[in-house]
Amino acid sequence: MTQGLGNKYVSRPHSPYVDIPKDHPRYASLVTRERLADFVRRGLMTPTGLISHGRGEAFDYLMGERTTGAAMEAERAAAAYMLNAKRPVVCVNGNAAALDTGRLIGLAEATGSRIEVNIFHRTKERMDALIDHMISCGAKDVLGRDPDSRIPGLSSERALCTNEGIFSSDVILVPIEDGDRAEALVRMGKVVIAIDLNPLSRTSRMATVSISDEMSRALDNMIRFAKELRDDEREREDIISRFSNMDNRKATIDRICDGLRSSGTDGK
Amino acid sequence: MTQGLGNKYVSRPHSPYVDIPKDHPRYASLVTRERLADFVRRGLMTPTGLISHGRGEAFDYLMGERTTGAAMEAERAAAAYMLNAKRPVVCVNGNAAALDTGRLIGLAEATGSRIEVNIFHRTKERMDALIDHMISCGAKDVLGRDPDSRIPGLSSERALCTNEGIFSSDVILVPIEDGDRAEALVRMGKVVIAIDLNPLSRTSRMATVSISDEMSRALDNMIRFAKELRDDEREREDIISRFSNMDNRKATIDRICDGLRSSGTDGK
Repeated sequence: MTQGLGNKYVSRPHSPYVDIPKDHPRYASLVTRERLADFVRRGLMTPTGLISHGRGEAFDYLMGERTTGAAMEAERAAAAYMLNAKRPVVCVNGNAAALDTGRLIGLAEATGSRIEVNIFHRTKERMDALIDHMISCGAKDVLGRDPDSRIPGLSSERALCTNEGIFSSDVILVPIEDGDRAEALVRMGKVVIAIDLNPLSRTSRMATVSISDEMSRALDNMIRFAKELRDDEREREDIISRFSNMDNRKATIDRICDGLRSSGTDGK
Repeated sequence: MTQGLGNKYVSRPHSPYVDIPKDHPRYASLVTRERLADFVRRGLMTPTGLISHGRGEAFDYLMGERTTGAAMEAERAAAAYMLNAKRPVVCVNGNAAALDTGRLIGLAEATGSRIEVNIFHRTKERMDALIDHMISCGAKDVLGRDPDSRIPGLSSERALCTNEGIFSSDVILVPIEDGDRAEALVRMGKVVIAIDLNPLSRTSRMATVSISDEMSRALDNMIRFAKELRDDEREREDIISRFSNMDNRKATIDRICDGLRSSGTDGK
């Protein structure tokens, strides 16, 4: 899933996944799990980040572990918003970096966005480790090390950001974001694009565009749409004017219920 | 949720939860998360066990984080099966021990069950640490340290068990079980009672009684039912003959869909 797509950036720190046979039906998911566990061991992600990932996995599973029609539509709208932005920013935390640093960099490049690392449990060590990791994966310029601004309405270190990046952005992509922060960014008047597998989460409810899809798949589609729409401003305006996040989220929820009801008749 | 119920056994290793305010709307869930992360730090649970927990959390969230009517019915049937058993066993792994050792011991006592520790990623150190943990929480007798039998059809260390416990059991409770193992236990002709928040998981489909409820709540109800039904064999037979796991799982799925659809209309 995250391989063989000719992505020129490196997504994956090399750790020994030797135990997982390639023909295992859940190979991609198991490799991802091992990669996340490795990020925790290296201090790039907190242990509770693994629990958040598991929550997301459940929704992915309920959607058949593939991009739904609704998610595809949201990804296209998101690409249009990012291309139309004056100051787009791709926000990266520990979970997002562990999942797919390569595609985060790829999307930033395809949409002319800045990258800023912003984490919930902020320490200098984790910030440095994450930024160094992104640079080692090919990112040229990563903001976040020296914050000079605060997101209004948030207490604690989570509020810290840079004026050059998050603070002055007009469109911001937040993959796997905390609900409080998503809400605070919306209150600042930004267009917030969330990647969050749970269509009912506070982040999904708050966002301008809520993408309920596995992050790598979502980014892959967004990169493709960004390339397609780069020179078609009229189509971008059309996509944005036709997009309803409420309708989109409802379609996602219907898809989950249909899947649940049709699977529920097996077994005993 | 796991406090104030006068349980005489200790569920919780003491670790500093000082950061979580008691009036936080998700206090119980956040405390549980911290306790699990602590188990990982102490080597009692694997990091990927946190991901499994997160998957479960998502289903709990979809069911409103309380026991559904269907789960209550399954918990009553499970208590009846355990009381009727000749050799009931409560099976314990790292996740189950981290969640609520005290209530696992309480249920074993209320139903006259043996306790056996059985883990997916078996090492002598983790087995010893888990058994010692259970004994420190008040368990008098915990099997699993010296396996002398194998569950047929399972490769790897997961197959190891004791003849005195799992191998010869007629009714076995498996909280948070791997699908392969649940299936192998069913093939051995045992009555398998699963506690698994995902009603669609292979474990839930395979089990004789599938309880889709948060483990502490499920155990609390089962302990109460075991006390109520202890001297009422006729009622136990009646409960067992009326119970349909298929109908019960369908009711759980309907409950999840109703919750999804009614929550989906908020937000934007």
